[in-house]
Amino acid sequence: MIRNILLTIEYDGTDFFGWQIQPEARTVQGEIQRVLKILCGTDVKVDGTSRTDAGVHALGQRASFMADLKGLPPEKLAYVMNNLLAPDVKILEAAVCPPDFHARYRAVGKKYVYKIMNGAPKDVFNRHFYYFYDRPLDPEKMREAAGQLVGTHDFRAFMAQGSTPQETTVRTIRSYDVAWKDRPELAEGCREITLTVAGSSFLYNMVRIMTGTLVEAGLGRIAPEDIPGILQSGDRSRAGHTAPPQGLYLAEVYYSEEELNG
Amino acid sequence: MIRNILLTIEYDGTDFFGWQIQPEARTVQGEIQRVLKILCGTDVKVDGTSRTDAGVHALGQRASFMADLKGLPPEKLAYVMNNLLAPDVKILEAAVCPPDFHARYRAVGKKYVYKIMNGAPKDVFNRHFYYFYDRPLDPEKMREAAGQLVGTHDFRAFMAQGSTPQETTVRTIRSYDVAWKDRPELAEGCREITLTVAGSSFLYNMVRIMTGTLVEAGLGRIAPEDIPGILQSGDRSRAGHTAPPQGLYLAEVYYSEEELNG
Repeated sequence: MIRNILLTIEYDGTDFFGWQIQPEARTVQGEIQRVLKILCGTDVKVDGTSRTDAGVHALGQRASFMADLKGLPPEKLAYVMNNLLAPDVKILEAAVCPPDFHARYRAVGKKYVYKIMNGAPKDVFNRHFYYFYDRPLDPEKMREAAGQLVGTHDFRAFMAQGSTPQETTVRTIRSYDVAWKDRPELAEGCREITLTVAGSSFLYNMVRIMTGTLVEAGLGRIAPEDIPGILQSGDRSRAGHTAPPQGLYLAEVYYSEEELNG
Repeated sequence: MIRNILLTIEYDGTDFFGWQIQPEARTVQGEIQRVLKILCGTDVKVDGTSRTDAGVHALGQRASFMADLKGLPPEKLAYVMNNLLAPDVKILEAAVCPPDFHARYRAVGKKYVYKIMNGAPKDVFNRHFYYFYDRPLDPEKMREAAGQLVGTHDFRAFMAQGSTPQETTVRTIRSYDVAWKDRPELAEGCREITLTVAGSSFLYNMVRIMTGTLVEAGLGRIAPEDIPGILQSGDRSRAGHTAPPQGLYLAEVYYSEEELNG
Protein backbone atom coordinates (compact mmCIF):
# COMPACT_ATOMS: atom_id res chain seq x y z
CA MET A 1 0.00 0.00 0.00
CA ILE A 2 1.42 3.35 -1.08
CA ARG A 3 1.24 6.01 1.60
CA ASN A 4 2.23 9.64 1.80
CA ILE A 5 4.48 10.22 4.81
CA LEU A 6 5.58 13.49 6.42
CA LEU A 7 8.86 13.42 8.36
CA THR A 8 10.03 15.90 10.99
CA ILE A 9 13.83 15.84 11.02
CA GLU A 10 16.59 17.08 13.31
CA TYR A 11 20.17 17.22 12.05
CA ASP A 12 23.62 18.45 12.87
CA GLY A 13 24.62 20.01 9.54
CA THR A 14 28.36 19.99 10.27
CA ASP A 15 29.30 16.94 8.24
CA PHE A 16 26.73 17.36 5.45
CA PHE A 17 27.02 19.26 2.19
CA GLY A 18 23.56 20.59 2.92
CA TRP A 19 20.13 19.04 2.42
CA GLN A 20 19.91 18.48 -1.31
CA ILE A 21 21.18 15.26 -2.84
CA GLN A 22 24.35 15.58 -4.91
CA PRO A 23 26.56 12.99 -6.54
CA GLU A 24 29.69 12.17 -4.50
CA ALA A 25 28.70 14.35 -1.53
CA ARG A 26 27.16 13.42 1.79
CA THR A 27 23.79 15.18 2.09
CA VAL A 28 20.84 14.82 4.48
CA GLN A 29 18.43 13.99 1.66
CA GLY A 30 20.86 11.37 0.38
CA GLU A 31 21.23 9.82 3.83
CA ILE A 32 17.46 9.60 4.33
CA GLN A 33 16.90 8.17 0.86
CA ARG A 34 19.64 5.57 1.49
CA VAL A 35 17.70 4.32 4.52
CA LEU A 36 14.30 4.39 2.80
CA LYS A 37 15.71 2.33 -0.06
CA ILE A 38 16.71 -0.36 2.47
CA LEU A 39 13.22 -0.31 4.03
CA CYS A 40 11.17 -0.08 0.84
CA GLY A 41 13.40 -2.09 -1.47
CA THR A 42 13.25 0.60 -4.14
CA ASP A 43 14.38 4.18 -4.75
CA VAL A 44 12.25 6.70 -2.85
CA LYS A 45 12.38 10.43 -3.50
CA VAL A 46 12.04 12.62 -0.43
CA ASP A 47 10.99 16.27 -0.85
CA GLY A 48 12.33 18.56 1.84
CA THR A 49 10.77 21.91 2.74
CA SER A 50 14.03 23.79 2.81
CA ARG A 51 17.30 23.24 0.96
CA THR A 52 19.57 24.08 3.87
CA ASP A 53 23.19 24.85 3.01
CA ALA A 54 26.31 23.00 4.13
CA GLY A 55 26.85 23.49 7.88
CA VAL A 56 23.29 24.67 8.55
CA HIS A 57 21.39 22.66 11.19
CA ALA A 58 17.75 21.69 11.60
CA LEU A 59 15.58 21.35 14.68
CA GLY A 60 12.48 20.66 12.60
CA GLN A 61 13.07 20.23 8.88
CA ARG A 62 10.08 18.62 7.13
CA ALA A 63 10.09 16.25 4.17
CA SER A 64 7.42 14.13 2.52
CA PHE A 65 7.55 11.04 0.31
CA MET A 66 5.22 8.46 -1.23
CA ALA A 67 6.21 4.86 -0.61
CA ASP A 68 5.09 1.36 0.18
CA LEU A 69 6.47 0.59 3.64
CA LYS A 70 6.26 -3.18 2.97
CA GLY A 71 4.13 -3.93 6.02
CA LEU A 72 6.13 -1.77 8.44
CA PRO A 73 3.56 0.06 10.61
CA PRO A 74 3.99 3.84 10.07
CA GLU A 75 4.06 4.43 13.82
CA LYS A 76 7.28 2.37 13.97
CA LEU A 77 8.90 4.11 11.00
CA ALA A 78 10.75 6.83 12.98
CA TYR A 79 12.21 4.26 15.38
CA VAL A 80 13.32 1.91 12.61
CA MET A 81 14.77 4.73 10.49
CA ASN A 82 16.73 6.10 13.47
CA ASN A 83 18.37 2.71 13.92
CA LEU A 84 19.59 2.80 10.33
CA LEU A 85 20.43 6.50 10.00
CA ALA A 86 23.84 7.99 10.80
CA PRO A 87 23.84 9.54 14.30
CA ASP A 88 23.84 13.13 12.99
CA VAL A 89 20.29 12.84 11.56
CA LYS A 90 17.26 11.95 13.63
CA ILE A 91 13.61 11.47 12.63
CA LEU A 92 11.57 13.18 15.36
CA GLU A 93 8.25 12.15 13.86
CA ALA A 94 6.85 10.23 10.88
CA ALA A 95 3.15 10.79 10.19
CA VAL A 96 0.81 9.46 7.50
CA CYS A 97 -0.76 12.39 5.66
CA PRO A 98 -3.38 12.82 2.90
CA PRO A 99 -2.23 11.81 -0.60
CA ASP A 100 -2.27 15.40 -1.86
CA PHE A 101 -0.08 16.77 0.95
CA HIS A 102 3.45 17.96 0.06
CA ALA A 103 6.07 19.08 2.59
CA ARG A 104 7.28 22.01 0.49
CA TYR A 105 4.28 23.15 -1.60
CA ARG A 106 1.95 23.14 1.40
CA ALA A 107 4.29 25.07 3.68
CA VAL A 108 3.04 28.60 4.40
CA GLY A 109 6.03 29.69 6.45
CA LYS A 110 9.19 28.80 8.33
CA LYS A 111 10.97 29.76 11.49
CA TYR A 112 14.77 30.03 11.73
CA VAL A 113 16.91 30.44 14.82
CA TYR A 114 20.38 32.01 14.62
CA LYS A 115 22.79 31.69 17.58
CA ILE A 116 25.59 34.18 18.22
CA MET A 117 28.20 33.82 20.96
CA ASN A 118 29.36 37.35 21.67
CA GLY A 119 32.59 38.01 23.50
CA ALA A 120 34.11 34.58 24.06
CA PRO A 121 36.96 33.05 22.08
CA LYS A 122 35.80 30.20 19.85
CA ASP A 123 35.96 26.98 21.85
CA VAL A 124 36.35 23.48 20.47
CA PHE A 125 32.96 22.28 21.76
CA ASN A 126 30.70 24.99 20.36
CA ARG A 127 32.54 25.81 17.14
CA HIS A 128 29.97 24.12 14.89
CA PHE A 129 26.90 25.53 16.65
CA TYR A 130 27.39 29.31 17.01
CA TYR A 131 28.65 32.35 15.21
CA PHE A 132 31.49 33.47 17.48
CA TYR A 133 31.71 37.24 17.38
CA ASP A 134 34.34 39.06 19.44
CA ARG A 135 33.52 42.75 19.40
CA PRO A 136 30.77 43.80 21.83
CA LEU A 137 27.27 43.95 20.34
CA ASP A 138 24.40 46.02 21.69
CA PRO A 139 21.42 43.63 21.61
CA GLU A 140 18.93 46.46 22.15
CA LYS A 141 20.09 48.01 18.87
CA MET A 142 19.83 44.61 17.18
CA ARG A 143 16.26 44.27 18.45
CA GLU A 144 15.37 47.72 17.08
CA ALA A 145 16.89 46.87 13.71
CA ALA A 146 15.07 43.51 13.63
CA GLY A 147 11.81 45.34 14.19
CA GLN A 148 12.47 47.36 11.03
CA LEU A 149 12.62 44.14 9.00
CA VAL A 150 9.22 42.87 10.14
CA GLY A 151 6.44 43.25 7.56
CA THR A 152 6.10 42.84 3.82
CA HIS A 153 9.04 44.31 1.93
CA ASP A 154 11.12 43.82 -1.18
CA PHE A 155 14.13 41.97 0.27
CA ARG A 156 16.31 42.16 -2.86
CA ALA A 157 19.08 43.86 -0.83
CA PHE A 158 19.08 40.79 1.45
CA MET A 159 19.50 38.15 -1.26
CA ALA A 160 22.84 36.56 -2.17
CA GLN A 161 24.26 37.99 -5.37
CA GLY A 162 24.18 35.47 -8.19
CA SER A 163 21.00 33.79 -6.87
CA THR A 164 18.61 32.18 -9.32
CA PRO A 165 16.28 35.00 -10.49
CA GLN A 166 13.00 35.05 -8.56
CA GLU A 167 9.57 36.00 -9.85
CA THR A 168 9.40 38.43 -6.96
CA THR A 169 11.76 39.36 -4.15
CA VAL A 170 8.90 40.56 -1.94
CA ARG A 171 8.67 38.53 1.24
CA THR A 172 6.80 38.85 4.55
CA ILE A 173 8.45 38.59 7.94
CA ARG A 174 5.92 37.93 10.72
CA SER A 175 8.19 38.24 13.73
CA TYR A 176 11.87 38.79 14.49
CA ASP A 177 12.85 38.29 18.11
CA VAL A 178 16.19 39.09 19.70
CA ALA A 179 16.88 37.44 23.07
CA TRP A 180 20.10 37.23 25.08
CA LYS A 181 21.57 35.75 28.21
CA ASP A 182 24.90 36.06 29.98
CA ARG A 183 27.35 33.18 29.60
CA PRO A 184 30.00 34.08 32.19
CA GLU A 185 31.18 30.46 32.35
CA LEU A 186 32.62 30.87 28.82
CA ALA A 187 34.25 34.27 29.32
CA GLU A 188 33.80 37.42 31.37
CA GLY A 189 31.17 39.57 29.70
CA CYS A 190 30.21 36.84 27.23
CA ARG A 191 26.62 36.86 26.05
CA GLU A 192 24.64 34.41 23.94
CA ILE A 193 22.34 36.22 21.51
CA THR A 194 19.52 34.27 19.85
CA LEU A 195 17.70 35.65 16.81
CA THR A 196 14.38 34.01 15.90
CA VAL A 197 12.71 34.95 12.64
CA ALA A 198 9.42 33.64 11.23
CA GLY A 199 8.17 34.45 7.77
CA SER A 200 6.35 33.28 4.69
CA SER A 201 9.44 32.27 2.77
CA PHE A 202 12.99 33.47 2.43
CA LEU A 203 15.32 34.37 -0.43
CA TYR A 204 18.65 32.61 -0.86
CA ASN A 205 20.92 33.46 2.14
CA MET A 206 18.35 36.00 3.36
CA VAL A 207 18.45 34.89 7.01
CA ARG A 208 22.25 34.93 7.07
CA ILE A 209 22.38 38.40 5.44
CA MET A 210 19.73 39.75 7.82
CA THR A 211 21.82 38.31 10.69
CA GLY A 212 24.97 40.02 9.41
CA THR A 213 22.98 43.26 9.14
CA LEU A 214 21.74 42.94 12.73
CA VAL A 215 25.31 42.25 13.89
CA GLU A 216 26.40 45.48 12.20
CA ALA A 217 23.49 47.25 13.88
CA GLY A 218 24.73 45.81 17.20
CA LEU A 219 28.17 47.30 16.46
CA GLY A 220 26.65 50.69 15.69
CA ARG A 221 27.79 50.56 12.05
CA ILE A 222 24.24 50.44 10.69
CA ALA A 223 21.55 52.44 12.49
CA PRO A 224 18.14 50.77 12.94
CA GLU A 225 16.54 53.71 11.14
CA ASP A 226 18.76 53.03 8.10
CA ILE A 227 17.03 49.69 7.48
CA PRO A 228 14.02 51.07 5.53
CA GLY A 229 16.43 52.87 3.19
CA ILE A 230 18.49 49.70 2.69
CA LEU A 231 15.30 47.77 1.86
CA GLN A 232 14.19 50.46 -0.60
CA SER A 233 17.59 50.61 -2.30
CA GLY A 234 17.53 46.92 -3.25
CA ASP A 235 21.32 47.20 -3.01
CA ARG A 236 23.04 44.11 -1.58
CA SER A 237 26.17 46.10 -0.77
CA ARG A 238 24.26 48.32 1.69
CA ALA A 239 23.06 45.37 3.81
CA GLY A 240 25.44 43.61 6.19
CA HIS A 241 27.79 40.67 5.68
CA THR A 242 26.56 37.11 5.26
CA ALA A 243 26.79 35.46 8.69
CA PRO A 244 28.33 31.96 8.65
CA PRO A 245 26.19 28.82 8.35
CA GLN A 246 27.12 27.23 11.71
CA GLY A 247 24.88 29.54 13.75
CA LEU A 248 21.77 28.84 11.64
CA TYR A 249 19.00 26.37 12.54
CA LEU A 250 15.83 25.66 10.56
CA ALA A 251 13.53 25.50 13.57
CA GLU A 252 9.99 25.00 12.34
CA VAL A 253 7.83 24.70 9.24
CA TYR A 254 4.24 25.99 9.29
CA TYR A 255 1.34 24.49 7.37
CA SER A 256 -1.39 26.90 8.47
CA GLU A 257 -1.60 30.68 8.82
CA GLU A 258 -2.67 30.26 12.45
CA GLU A 259 0.61 28.52 13.35
CA LEU A 260 2.65 31.05 11.43
CA ASN A 261 1.02 33.99 13.16
CA GLY A 262 1.59 32.30 16.53
CA MET B 1 67.85 28.08 22.71
CA ILE B 2 66.17 25.02 24.19
CA ARG B 3 63.25 25.84 26.45
CA ASN B 4 60.85 23.80 28.52
CA ILE B 5 57.26 24.70 27.64
CA LEU B 6 54.03 23.83 29.44
CA LEU B 7 50.86 23.78 27.34
CA THR B 8 47.27 24.01 28.59
CA ILE B 9 45.07 22.28 26.02
CA GLU B 10 41.35 22.10 25.25
CA TYR B 11 40.03 19.43 22.88
CA ASP B 12 36.90 17.83 21.58
CA GLY B 13 37.80 14.14 21.86
CA THR B 14 35.14 12.95 19.41
CA ASP B 15 37.36 12.47 16.38
CA PHE B 16 40.51 11.40 18.22
CA PHE B 17 41.64 7.93 19.25
CA GLY B 18 42.56 9.46 22.60
CA TRP B 19 45.60 11.41 23.68
CA GLN B 20 48.47 9.01 23.18
CA ILE B 21 50.25 8.81 19.85
CA GLN B 22 49.63 5.64 17.84
CA PRO B 23 50.64 4.64 14.35
CA GLU B 24 47.84 5.08 11.78
CA ALA B 25 45.42 6.71 14.25
CA ARG B 26 44.54 10.34 14.79
CA THR B 27 45.49 11.31 18.36
CA VAL B 28 45.80 14.63 20.19
CA GLN B 29 49.47 14.07 21.00
CA GLY B 30 50.09 13.21 17.36
CA GLU B 31 48.30 16.36 16.17
CA ILE B 32 50.29 18.60 18.55
CA GLN B 33 53.60 16.95 17.62
CA ARG B 34 52.77 17.39 13.93
CA VAL B 35 52.48 21.15 14.47
CA LEU B 36 55.58 21.41 16.66
CA LYS B 37 57.61 19.60 14.01
CA ILE B 38 56.60 22.30 11.51
CA LEU B 39 57.58 25.08 13.94
CA CYS B 40 60.80 23.55 15.29
CA GLY B 41 61.96 21.75 12.17
CA THR B 42 62.58 18.54 14.09
CA ASP B 43 60.64 15.84 15.99
CA VAL B 44 59.46 17.07 19.38
CA LYS B 45 58.08 14.73 22.03
CA VAL B 46 55.23 16.14 24.09
CA ASP B 47 54.41 14.56 27.48
CA GLY B 48 50.77 14.86 28.47
CA THR B 49 49.54 14.65 32.04
CA SER B 50 46.69 12.29 31.28
CA ARG B 51 46.27 9.64 28.59
CA THR B 52 42.64 10.35 27.90
CA ASP B 53 40.72 7.64 26.01
CA ALA B 54 39.01 7.92 22.63
CA GLY B 55 35.97 10.20 22.88
CA VAL B 56 37.06 11.83 26.17
CA HIS B 57 37.35 15.62 26.10
CA ALA B 58 39.66 18.09 27.80
CA LEU B 59 39.04 21.55 29.18
CA GLY B 60 42.56 21.80 30.59
CA GLN B 61 44.89 18.95 29.66
CA ARG B 62 48.53 19.81 30.33
CA ALA B 63 51.59 18.74 28.39
CA SER B 64 55.25 19.76 28.46
CA PHE B 65 58.08 19.54 25.95
CA MET B 66 61.65 20.70 25.47
CA ALA B 67 62.37 22.42 22.18
CA ASP B 68 64.12 25.20 20.36
CA LEU B 69 61.37 27.48 19.09
CA LYS B 70 63.69 28.89 16.40
CA GLY B 71 63.25 32.51 17.42
CA LEU B 72 59.47 32.35 17.84
CA PRO B 73 58.67 34.30 21.05
CA PRO B 74 57.03 31.89 23.54
CA GLU B 75 54.21 34.38 24.16
CA LYS B 76 53.20 33.96 20.51
CA LEU B 77 53.41 30.17 20.54
CA ALA B 78 49.75 29.48 21.46
CA TYR B 79 48.50 31.80 18.72
CA VAL B 80 50.79 30.35 16.06
CA MET B 81 50.04 26.75 17.07
CA ASN B 82 46.27 27.40 16.98
CA ASN B 83 46.59 28.59 13.41
CA LEU B 84 48.22 25.30 12.43
CA LEU B 85 46.22 22.90 14.61
CA ALA B 86 43.00 21.19 13.50
CA PRO B 87 39.95 23.05 14.89
CA ASP B 88 39.16 20.37 17.48
CA VAL B 89 42.31 21.10 19.52
CA LYS B 90 43.15 24.48 21.00
CA ILE B 91 46.15 25.67 23.01
CA LEU B 92 44.73 27.83 25.81
CA GLU B 93 48.15 28.78 27.14
CA ALA B 94 51.83 28.13 26.46
CA ALA B 95 54.20 29.07 29.28
CA VAL B 96 57.97 28.79 29.69
CA CYS B 97 58.77 26.75 32.80
CA PRO B 98 61.94 25.71 34.67
CA PRO B 99 64.05 23.04 32.94
CA ASP B 100 63.24 20.41 35.56
CA PHE B 101 59.46 20.81 35.31
CA HIS B 102 57.44 17.93 33.80
CA ALA B 103 53.70 18.07 33.05
CA ARG B 104 53.02 14.54 34.30
CA TYR B 105 55.61 13.84 37.00
CA ARG B 106 55.00 17.18 38.74
CA ALA B 107 51.22 16.86 38.76
CA VAL B 108 49.84 16.29 42.25
CA GLY B 109 46.22 15.92 41.22
CA LYS B 110 43.54 16.25 38.58
CA LYS B 111 39.95 17.31 38.29
CA TYR B 112 37.45 15.58 36.01
CA VAL B 113 33.94 16.70 35.08
CA TYR B 114 31.32 14.18 33.94
CA LYS B 115 28.09 15.41 32.29
CA ILE B 116 24.88 13.39 32.32
CA MET B 117 21.68 14.37 30.51
CA ASN B 118 18.91 12.67 32.40
CA GLY B 119 15.49 12.22 30.88
CA ALA B 120 15.81 13.58 27.34
CA PRO B 121 16.17 11.49 24.17
CA LYS B 122 19.66 11.74 22.70
CA ASP B 123 19.72 14.69 20.31
CA VAL B 124 22.04 15.16 17.36
CA PHE B 125 23.72 18.27 18.80
CA ASN B 126 24.72 16.99 22.23
CA ARG B 127 25.42 13.36 21.40
CA HIS B 128 29.21 13.67 21.71
CA PHE B 129 29.16 15.73 24.90
CA TYR B 130 26.88 13.99 27.42
CA TYR B 131 25.94 10.59 28.74
CA PHE B 132 22.23 10.42 27.84
CA TYR B 133 20.43 8.43 30.49
CA ASP B 134 16.68 7.87 30.24
CA ARG B 135 15.47 6.46 33.55
CA PRO B 136 14.98 9.04 36.31
CA LEU B 137 17.95 9.51 38.62
CA ASP B 138 17.77 10.87 42.17
CA PRO B 139 20.67 13.33 42.36
CA GLU B 140 20.46 13.54 46.17
CA LYS B 141 21.24 9.81 46.33
CA MET B 142 24.09 10.30 43.87
CA ARG B 143 25.49 13.07 46.07
CA GLU B 144 25.33 10.83 49.14
CA ALA B 145 27.07 8.01 47.29
CA ALA B 146 29.74 10.41 45.97
CA GLY B 147 30.43 11.48 49.55
CA GLN B 148 31.22 7.85 50.42
CA LEU B 149 33.97 7.80 47.78
CA VAL B 150 35.80 10.86 49.15
CA GLY B 151 38.96 10.07 51.12
CA THR B 152 41.84 7.63 50.80
CA HIS B 153 40.68 4.14 49.82
CA ASP B 154 41.78 1.08 47.89
CA PHE B 155 39.89 1.65 44.62
CA ARG B 156 40.62 -1.80 43.12
CA ALA B 157 36.86 -2.39 42.68
CA PHE B 158 36.77 0.79 40.52
CA MET B 159 39.55 -0.16 38.11
CA ALA B 160 38.95 -1.63 34.65
CA GLN B 161 39.60 -5.37 34.59
CA GLY B 162 42.69 -6.22 32.60
CA SER B 163 44.44 -2.95 33.52
CA THR B 164 48.22 -2.89 33.75
CA PRO B 165 49.05 -4.05 37.33
CA GLN B 166 49.67 -1.09 39.65
CA GLU B 167 52.09 -0.91 42.58
CA THR B 168 49.12 0.17 44.66
CA THR B 169 45.45 0.71 43.97
CA VAL B 170 45.09 3.10 46.90
CA ARG B 171 44.04 6.57 45.74
CA THR B 172 42.80 9.75 47.41
CA ILE B 173 39.68 11.63 46.34
CA ARG B 174 39.62 15.18 47.69
CA SER B 175 36.15 16.22 46.62
CA TYR B 176 33.25 14.80 44.63
CA ASP B 177 30.49 17.29 43.83
CA VAL B 178 27.11 16.53 42.32
CA ALA B 179 25.22 19.49 40.83
CA TRP B 180 22.09 19.59 38.69
CA LYS B 181 19.86 21.96 36.81
CA ASP B 182 16.58 21.54 34.95
CA ARG B 183 16.74 21.50 31.15
CA PRO B 184 13.04 21.75 30.24
CA GLU B 185 13.91 23.06 26.76
CA LEU B 186 15.23 19.58 25.89
CA ALA B 187 12.38 17.54 27.36
CA GLU B 188 9.82 17.78 30.14
CA GLY B 189 11.47 16.73 33.38
CA CYS B 190 14.94 16.65 31.83
CA ARG B 191 17.80 17.43 34.15
CA GLU B 192 21.50 17.97 33.50
CA ILE B 193 23.63 16.37 36.22
CA THR B 194 27.29 17.38 36.53
CA LEU B 195 29.74 15.32 38.57
CA THR B 196 33.05 16.97 39.49
CA VAL B 197 35.76 14.88 41.10
CA ALA B 198 39.23 16.00 42.22
CA GLY B 199 41.88 13.60 43.42
CA SER B 200 45.55 12.72 43.57
CA SER B 201 45.49 10.35 40.64
CA PHE B 202 43.07 7.85 39.16
CA LEU B 203 43.20 4.20 38.12
CA TYR B 204 42.35 3.18 34.56
CA ASN B 205 38.64 3.93 33.88
CA MET B 206 38.16 4.84 37.56
CA VAL B 207 36.18 8.04 36.89
CA ARG B 208 33.89 6.29 34.41
CA ILE B 209 33.30 3.34 36.80
CA MET B 210 32.63 5.72 39.71
CA THR B 211 30.18 7.56 37.44
CA GLY B 212 28.38 4.32 36.55
CA THR B 213 28.21 3.50 40.26
CA LEU B 214 26.71 6.92 41.06
CA VAL B 215 24.17 6.43 38.26
CA GLU B 216 23.15 3.12 39.84
CA ALA B 217 22.92 4.87 43.20
CA GLY B 218 20.65 7.45 41.51
CA LEU B 219 18.45 4.58 40.29
CA GLY B 220 18.28 3.09 43.79
CA ARG B 221 20.09 -0.07 42.71
CA ILE B 222 23.12 0.62 44.89
CA ALA B 223 22.57 2.27 48.29
CA PRO B 224 25.05 4.99 49.32
CA GLU B 225 25.80 2.99 52.45
CA ASP B 226 26.85 0.01 50.28
CA ILE B 227 29.83 1.95 48.90
CA PRO B 228 32.25 1.25 51.80
CA GLY B 229 31.57 -2.49 51.40
CA ILE B 230 32.16 -2.30 47.65
CA LEU B 231 35.48 -0.50 48.26
CA GLN B 232 36.51 -3.10 50.84
CA SER B 233 35.58 -6.02 48.59
CA GLY B 234 37.95 -4.94 45.83
CA ASP B 235 35.45 -6.67 43.54
CA ARG B 236 34.92 -4.90 40.19
CA SER B 237 31.63 -6.74 39.64
CA ARG B 238 30.09 -5.07 42.72
CA ALA B 239 30.74 -1.51 41.46
CA GLY B 240 28.57 0.01 38.72
CA HIS B 241 28.91 -0.07 34.94
CA THR B 242 31.57 1.89 33.05
CA ALA B 243 29.92 5.12 31.89
CA PRO B 244 30.66 6.05 28.25
CA PRO B 245 33.57 8.33 27.31
CA GLN B 246 31.52 11.15 25.71
CA GLY B 247 30.42 12.60 29.07
CA LEU B 248 33.96 12.84 30.46
CA TYR B 249 36.13 15.97 30.51
CA LEU B 250 39.63 16.32 31.98
CA ALA B 251 39.05 19.71 33.58
CA GLU B 252 42.17 20.69 35.47
CA VAL B 253 45.63 19.53 36.49
CA TYR B 254 47.10 20.63 39.82
CA TYR B 255 50.77 21.26 40.51
CA SER B 256 50.51 22.19 44.18
CA GLU B 257 48.66 20.75 47.15
CA GLU B 258 47.06 24.16 47.78
CA GLU B 259 45.36 24.12 44.37
CA LEU B 260 44.27 20.50 44.78
CA ASN B 261 42.69 21.15 48.16
CA GLY B 262 40.90 24.18 46.71
